[in-house]
Amino acid sequence: MKPNFSLRLRVFNLNCWGIPYLSKHRTDRVKRLGDFLNRESFDLALLEEVWSEQDFQYLRQKLLPAYPAAHYFRSGIIGSGLCVFSKHPIQEFTQHVFTLNGYPYMIHHGDWFCGKAVGLLVLHLGGLVFNAYVTHLHAEYNRQKDIYLAHRVAQAWELAQFIHHTSKKADVVLLCGDLNLHPKDLGCRLLKEWTGLHDAYLETRDFKGPEEGCTMVPENCYVNRQELEQFPLGIRIDYVLYKAVSGLYISCKTLRTTTGHEPHSGSPLSDHEALMATLCVRHSPPQHNPSPTHAERSPLISVLREAWTELDQGMAQGRWWATIAGYVIGLGLLLLTLLCALVAGGEIREVAVLLWTPSVGLVLGAGAFYLFHVQEAKGLCRARAELQHVLGRAREAQDLGSESQSALLLGQQEGDRAEEQ
Amino acid sequence: MKPNFSLRLRVFNLNCWGIPYLSKHRTDRVKRLGDFLNRESFDLALLEEVWSEQDFQYLRQKLLPAYPAAHYFRSGIIGSGLCVFSKHPIQEFTQHVFTLNGYPYMIHHGDWFCGKAVGLLVLHLGGLVFNAYVTHLHAEYNRQKDIYLAHRVAQAWELAQFIHHTSKKADVVLLCGDLNLHPKDLGCRLLKEWTGLHDAYLETRDFKGPEEGCTMVPENCYVNRQELEQFPLGIRIDYVLYKAVSGLYISCKTLRTTTGHEPHSGSPLSDHEALMATLCVRHSPPQHNPSPTHAERSPLISVLREAWTELDQGMAQGRWWATIAGYVIGLGLLLLTLLCALVAGGEIREVAVLLWTPSVGLVLGAGAFYLFHVQEAKGLCRARAELQHVLGRAREAQDLGSESQSALLLGQQEGDRAEEQ
Repeated sequence: MKPNFSLRLRVFNLNCWGIPYLSKHRTDRVKRLGDFLNRESFDLALLEEVWSEQDFQYLRQKLLPAYPAAHYFRSGIIGSGLCVFSKHPIQEFTQHVFTLNGYPYMIHHGDWFCGKAVGLLVLHLGGLVFNAYVTHLHAEYNRQKDIYLAHRVAQAWELAQFIHHTSKKADVVLLCGDLNLHPKDLGCRLLKEWTGLHDAYLETRDFKGPEEGCTMVPENCYVNRQELEQFPLGIRIDYVLYKAVSGLYISCKTLRTTTGHEPHSGSPLSDHEALMATLCVRHSPPQHNPSPTHAERSPLISVLREAWTELDQGMAQGRWWATIAGYVIGLGLLLLTLLCALVAGGEIREVAVLLWTPSVGLVLGAGAFYLFHVQEAKGLCRARAELQHVLGRAREAQDLGSESQSALLLGQQEGDRAEEQ
Repeated sequence: MKPNFSLRLRVFNLNCWGIPYLSKHRTDRVKRLGDFLNRESFDLALLEEVWSEQDFQYLRQKLLPAYPAAHYFRSGIIGSGLCVFSKHPIQEFTQHVFTLNGYPYMIHHGDWFCGKAVGLLVLHLGGLVFNAYVTHLHAEYNRQKDIYLAHRVAQAWELAQFIHHTSKKADVVLLCGDLNLHPKDLGCRLLKEWTGLHDAYLETRDFKGPEEGCTMVPENCYVNRQELEQFPLGIRIDYVLYKAVSGLYISCKTLRTTTGHEPHSGSPLSDHEALMATLCVRHSPPQHNPSPTHAERSPLISVLREAWTELDQGMAQGRWWATIAGYVIGLGLLLLTLLCALVAGGEIREVAVLLWTPSVGLVLGAGAFYLFHVQEAKGLCRARAELQHVLGRAREAQDLGSESQSALLLGQQEGDRAEEQ
């Protein structure tokens, strides 16, 4: 790599709100999105909530000349909704489906059926290995009483771990997506602290878009007003995050966000705003890369502790639900035995027969509920164990750091004393 | 690293057959396994089918002095059954649960409830980054009519992809486990071709154990004789596989396999045989590392093609089952409407009420069956897409290789001609 090496990269991210039959003006919006992407010719366009594979195929055809490489990440029953269009050849791709993703019986929320995931693309650009990740975490339906909090924290942890373990040889890491997390939310801090990713909105000096970088704003006619009741300016839940290895320096030259209506037609492309970032990767002079200091490790330790508590509470709750379900199964079986006895005895036969269906339903439903929550508790326990291990090692490193700092200080003091003598 | 650097590593692998209430003499075998591991003091002991967490906790306590680091990989409803005991500190660990793992309605086989997975440990040994993987793939219940073949191929692919993407900075890669694959089975070849892992049994010059390295042998009193009907010598489905990066050379000095009975007590530790490998990692002089030639790429291309076909067939079958389930749902709904009409009309009321439960059950069951097979087809489609991409790139590389070889040959011929002139 030449010392004056510089790589410019234009990236687009949008949660497309593409639910067939439910999202308003979907076909028109997908068409306009295709036109917009063709006009702008980004290096990489990462999309979420493209729930219909037909929409992806339509875009693929339309964008083929400008974006020869594309991939649709399939998972779950409905899909992950994630896809990507790239101007540059995709060297490799893979995906990781999150272990926990809501509850199957919350059918009206539907996240469980989607198979939320993180997709990874490996690109080779200007001699650099470039890992681009696209993701979409579980939605937040009620911020005051968020029953999905533990799952979202577990997803943020799995996302961070997936990036951590798959990007070890990458020169540049880029993560785009709808995290369904506000900037100061636990999951967002956990992700940033463990991966070391930087937030384009916070880093750039040239931002144009809604106040506070919001990506769901009241000006957008498709936005659900109820979701923004507590936030008159809007919320920021879509992100462009990045980092580069030592020896390289990555910065966000400009970050543009749509403002609730598309510049040309006036009506928005989605209920979310699109993020358009111009990133610049440059060679940075070799620097002394000291191990993180005591003060630098503290935020990681504190966020790990907080996440541990959240996962632990989620686990306890999962186990509690499994226990309740266990009791219900027992009750249901008792009821079924009673009904069988009544039918056999010829007493109130019709009532017994009528009660048979709901009783069988109760036992089967409670059985499924039990199995689901046992699996949920196991999933949370797994994330907690991984997190606890990292926490342990971070503490060890901190203790070692303090010791060596103390030793250094002691050595210095002794040296001072020696000099004094 | 010094030029005369050498690292010796003793590794143990065993499928423990630890099903509570079902596996014979489980408690005694776990106790004897603990004694054996303590006596032998391996660097790393990787275990499968430790289904009871109590067994893991018992071993953890017992092995603590000799193996200070341990981890149990939790997943699914029952668990992954995977755990590890290490003499050396574990730097990092994580896991990947396979997307496809049999069918929930095949309750008697039970694999679906386990959450089969691959676990990863990162160790730092002698200045090297050492990635150790432990796994257990879906069992093969009927080799002649294997309904899980597509799932096992998809698992082998996910396993290979997980290793490929998480080991890019590792100096040494080790994979141990029960693959439920014979050495020449498609999944095994796919895994080895895509990851470049070598088989300890085939590589070592010093093997002691049953003929052909079998890990399930008829001499073992716990083995299910039916499983070995076609294979009088036994089968080899448990593996120690490894590779090292360029600049390092890894070899298997010795490989020992138990022979159906434990040397001291005479009765075996499990229905599988244990594998004990002594690996040696050495510095190898810098070598010219040419890109794979045409001939070297052919086996990869051929196995990718074969796997593509298998996944494609599995996908078609998954879709077929989903379609059938769709028809059954329709029929069930029709039946329910008819029953409602009969009840409302007061005709054969008791029969209608009696038929209500099975009809509701039919609709719900077919609904769950439909959703499951839609998700199965999506999972297989995902693996097929990843595989197809790798196949495309391997072919491109092969074509480029042939072209450059032809160009080289052409250049040489022209040179010869020029010399002749």
